[in-house]
Amino acid sequence: MNQSGRNINPHISVDCVIFGFSTNQLKVLLIRRAFTESSGKHINDHKLPGDFITLNEDLDLAASRTLEELTGLKDIYLQQFIFLGKPDRISNPMDIEWLNATTGHKIQRVVTAAYFSLINITDTNSAFAIKNNATWIDVKQVPNLAFDHGTIICTGLAHLQLALRNEPIGFELLPEKFTIRELQTLYEVILDCTLDNRNFRKKILKSSYLVQLEEKQRGVAHKPAYYYSFDRKIYEKHKKESLGFNF
Amino acid sequence: MNQSGRNINPHISVDCVIFGFSTNQLKVLLIRRAFTESSGKHINDHKLPGDFITLNEDLDLAASRTLEELTGLKDIYLQQFIFLGKPDRISNPMDIEWLNATTGHKIQRVVTAAYFSLINITDTNSAFAIKNNATWIDVKQVPNLAFDHGTIICTGLAHLQLALRNEPIGFELLPEKFTIRELQTLYEVILDCTLDNRNFRKKILKSSYLVQLEEKQRGVAHKPAYYYSFDRKIYEKHKKESLGFNF
Repeated sequence: MNQSGRNINPHISVDCVIFGFSTNQLKVLLIRRAFTESSGKHINDHKLPGDFITLNEDLDLAASRTLEELTGLKDIYLQQFIFLGKPDRISNPMDIEWLNATTGHKIQRVVTAAYFSLINITDTNSAFAIKNNATWIDVKQVPNLAFDHGTIICTGLAHLQLALRNEPIGFELLPEKFTIRELQTLYEVILDCTLDNRNFRKKILKSSYLVQLEEKQRGVAHKPAYYYSFDRKIYEKHKKESLGFNF
Repeated sequence: MNQSGRNINPHISVDCVIFGFSTNQLKVLLIRRAFTESSGKHINDHKLPGDFITLNEDLDLAASRTLEELTGLKDIYLQQFIFLGKPDRISNPMDIEWLNATTGHKIQRVVTAAYFSLINITDTNSAFAIKNNATWIDVKQVPNLAFDHGTIICTGLAHLQLALRNEPIGFELLPEKFTIRELQTLYEVILDCTLDNRNFRKKILKSSYLVQLEEKQRGVAHKPAYYYSFDRKIYEKHKKESLGFNF
């Protein structure tokens, strides 16, 4: 892990909060940090995929590069959501020792640009080369993390929830045709709440961009439900004409 | 202007995009940059209120401190909206010379955290000590600016417009009681578009948090319109129960 001599900018880092949706669970991608302190104490905790930027590297590129290097995940859309710069955000002696040892620099203050993304684990998981001990962990069971990465995940989750309410990002995590129940479960899992079935149905069916298909579920024990699909063209047209106000 | 010896972190800066609304215009607060280059050429252009952070300063505090030092504006709510770190964002020799001269540091690469705010100029302007040649300029008439500050304003405007569609920030720029026409004008000015009167009325009146008062306009040439007020309590309750989906 010692990367001494790398041309990093030791003042600025990037961290990636990658949320994954799989079998009705919201997960986050973490990297295992194994390290033996000078005191002999062995550290074995988790951190977010992240790194210092190199001397002439754009922040967005640094985030993509880091994510790929640490997890094998490529071509993931990453959205910057916060920049953290509290002077004491790196104050745990263990974190400082780890940084100095792995970078070969004497690290003092680091400001970090945090990025987030949301991907469907079930669809694409098999294609990911999850290297470097990267693991998906249920957001409800995130252990104590290195640095302030726990806080970064909490803030990232708030951003994800806000985005889910204001943008049609949820549909990207469902198959092309889905039932209203499946859509509701997705919202319930990400927003971490129980929604009233009737109100959800009523609200979501009012939107012109949700199209009812002729096909129904087959082979289910209950009354088969209709499938729906999300029509992005209708959505784009609606959005152009929409004023918002859904405060 | 030479501040040699200040304990700044020469890698990280903050910039503030302060939008002001006044007599149906959207303006932005700029600082005049007067400087004579070593070549003898005199520079007299504008920049955003901004500065390097000091060694042990939090980013948010640096933004507030800078804004107050340069404009006298105090206790303004500032929201971080982007972090810019392209390696070549400071490449104009004039900008580099100005930075070196005013900071006493050899400035190389600077990443900047950009903040925005929206204030009502008419209500509070008289209380502001606009120092240091700070001026309000119509966003449609922003001249060429120092650094990439023109880009920062454009991005800030996009964030403001998105916020206006998704949050009730517009009401803070109006008097306590206002007509639907006044509200529509506010939206038209900030979104830079013409809205259909009937659709706007219909949409805005559907919201439970807009309360019609008994009072009507007086002494107007046209048919007097009812006044309305924004009820934040109803809004907060609605928001708690709201699912969003106004994609």
